[in-house]
Amino acid sequence: MTGATLQAIRYQRGSLEIIDQLLLPHETLYIPISTLALGHDAIKTMKVRGAPAIAIVAALSLAVVLVDPSTITSGRLSTAQGAVAFIEESLEFLKTSRPTAVNLFDAAHKLAKGVREAGAVANAKGQDVVDKYLELSEKMLEDDVRDNMNIGRFGAEFILKVWKGGDDLRVITHCNTGSLATAGYGTALGIIRALAGQKKLTHAYCTETRPYNQGSRLTAYELVYEKIPSTLITDSMASALLAQNPDKIAAIVVGADRVAANGDTANKIGTYQLAITARYHNIPFIVAAPSTSVDLNIASGKEIHIEVRPAVEVTTLRGPVVELESISKGSNDVVFKTHNGQDVAETIAVAARGIGVWNPSFDVTPAELISAVVTEKGVVLKEDGVQQFDMKAFLTSH
Amino acid sequence: MTGATLQAIRYQRGSLEIIDQLLLPHETLYIPISTLALGHDAIKTMKVRGAPAIAIVAALSLAVVLVDPSTITSGRLSTAQGAVAFIEESLEFLKTSRPTAVNLFDAAHKLAKGVREAGAVANAKGQDVVDKYLELSEKMLEDDVRDNMNIGRFGAEFILKVWKGGDDLRVITHCNTGSLATAGYGTALGIIRALAGQKKLTHAYCTETRPYNQGSRLTAYELVYEKIPSTLITDSMASALLAQNPDKIAAIVVGADRVAANGDTANKIGTYQLAITARYHNIPFIVAAPSTSVDLNIASGKEIHIEVRPAVEVTTLRGPVVELESISKGSNDVVFKTHNGQDVAETIAVAARGIGVWNPSFDVTPAELISAVVTEKGVVLKEDGVQQFDMKAFLTSH
Repeated sequence: MTGATLQAIRYQRGSLEIIDQLLLPHETLYIPISTLALGHDAIKTMKVRGAPAIAIVAALSLAVVLVDPSTITSGRLSTAQGAVAFIEESLEFLKTSRPTAVNLFDAAHKLAKGVREAGAVANAKGQDVVDKYLELSEKMLEDDVRDNMNIGRFGAEFILKVWKGGDDLRVITHCNTGSLATAGYGTALGIIRALAGQKKLTHAYCTETRPYNQGSRLTAYELVYEKIPSTLITDSMASALLAQNPDKIAAIVVGADRVAANGDTANKIGTYQLAITARYHNIPFIVAAPSTSVDLNIASGKEIHIEVRPAVEVTTLRGPVVELESISKGSNDVVFKTHNGQDVAETIAVAARGIGVWNPSFDVTPAELISAVVTEKGVVLKEDGVQQFDMKAFLTSH
Repeated sequence: MTGATLQAIRYQRGSLEIIDQLLLPHETLYIPISTLALGHDAIKTMKVRGAPAIAIVAALSLAVVLVDPSTITSGRLSTAQGAVAFIEESLEFLKTSRPTAVNLFDAAHKLAKGVREAGAVANAKGQDVVDKYLELSEKMLEDDVRDNMNIGRFGAEFILKVWKGGDDLRVITHCNTGSLATAGYGTALGIIRALAGQKKLTHAYCTETRPYNQGSRLTAYELVYEKIPSTLITDSMASALLAQNPDKIAAIVVGADRVAANGDTANKIGTYQLAITARYHNIPFIVAAPSTSVDLNIASGKEIHIEVRPAVEVTTLRGPVVELESISKGSNDVVFKTHNGQDVAETIAVAARGIGVWNPSFDVTPAELISAVVTEKGVVLKEDGVQQFDMKAFLTSH
């Protein structure tokens, strides 16, 4: 990670701190994770979110405990067998923080396997098992950040290669795919960071990303934090923005929840609509995702089941109360003057009672509309005249 | 107006009541408008909104006063000259309630002209001038509602004609174009009302219409009020909805702020994006507007200036406070349990501090993407192979 990049997860051996995302974007508070219980609670209560970030925080919370085992029942780490058992128990406990998190389960599985192997070596000591765990869990953090930096680098390179406009190069992104959703740096937001780092980006636009507003709450926060010139728009404004800036927007870049073998991509609701408008305006639509998000067992997007979420996400919104008097005077300067100087969070209703609601969490963008899938291994393109990607061929050759 | 239709403006000679739209959708309260001051205040404080509705409320508030002139300085209506002067002064006063409302100014101009003519007739009495005013202002209400009902009828007819699907006919609409924005019945929502009245509509979808949520607040309210089966979606979900229901959505219908001579249409932000997705999914995109919204002086959408509104509309939201405990338990049933049983309205912040915001109020949909413009005079279509409408030819021949 570069110094300038927002670090949602701060780790060095023996110490872990994370930004409490429940307080974002209104307050930036790092909270120490020094016990398993605190790691478990941070995940369960959504203080950390984003599948890769959850897995890393769980893994590292145990790493911190192993370095300072003062809270562990005396002697449990003194033998290899004892250390393996303790680590496996701890991982099982951490998994209960989010029983649906596939990345968390994968990570726990790999870590448990690694320490069992270390413990099975002849004459292994407890410390050997602990060292193995530290090595593996720290490597997960490093690998994830490095993968994202490579996605950023490859994505920036691709955009600069296909960009036919002048020095005013702007990019639109959707949802949050940054340091707050990953181990660090981000995927689609990593591409924006890479372009900005190379001084090639003049402006980033983020959609607010209804209904949960990850764009206005989190991506906007990251862009402001890193002083990247940026503007928030509603999801519905992307097309008008493209129409009014025909020679400035170089690409729309988004992340991926899952990429099928043919390149069809499931991602945050609204992604598909952005892909359609990118096509109409003839600008590149780029999916950024680590190769671990590619599921070769899924032939196409048709096989992806879309979760439908509760209506209240659409009909209500939560945030700190601000005084209407002070904000209504402002024009483009937003003054968040809160009651008594405190961020009093309230939930308000913004829809008529009794209306039905459809709230799919994701949609599927067909490969046809996607210009490139950027992974940490490189950029996947479609062959001329073919409307699908061959993700398998790319991944097996890279 | 049919009995079943929501009446946002209730008028009979001598009596005017309007729904206080500031309380919608959470409370339905009709407030009496019995004086000029109340009419002025209702417009100025946004208790009534929508250009046609504002003009009608202003005109009728004066009609009510003229029928019961107890508050008028004694004798001012006893001569034709006095009555004309009083009416002109009153209209000038009402115009100051919303100095930018073109429809209001047009209506005031026509009404003043009419009463001056009535007052200039030989031996005209004060009562003759008053009668003329009542006739003209009441006709404005009737004409506007009748025009909308014709738009509804023509629009429904067109959709049924081009619909190739089965009995499950659904329509998507954007923003609020209903009884709450017009003198009654509505334009695009009038088409939905007409289809529902003919038992041809199985379902209506309304977008929430960010950033001001006219869809979730007002259109959803009207659809629930009239018991039309309906579902709220975010603006970004329209494409996913079309993809998942390829044989059910018959059209996207929207209103218009202004229609250029070639059919390019300025309308609420997000309209253009919906038009693009309608094209991609090959379903009709229909603009519903009275012929008074067609501006033949504007050759194309390029000449339409788009107002940019304050950032706070995007970064904050206002609504009654609801208890998080009770709503988080619900799944698709939204329980608006408010504090102490009262609708305590608060403004909350939903964006990161310091982010720039672009908030255009409208966008321009090119005629190329519009299937039909439905007016009270009939349906305007493009000729085969032509990408523009000839609004002038249609309006001069109808």
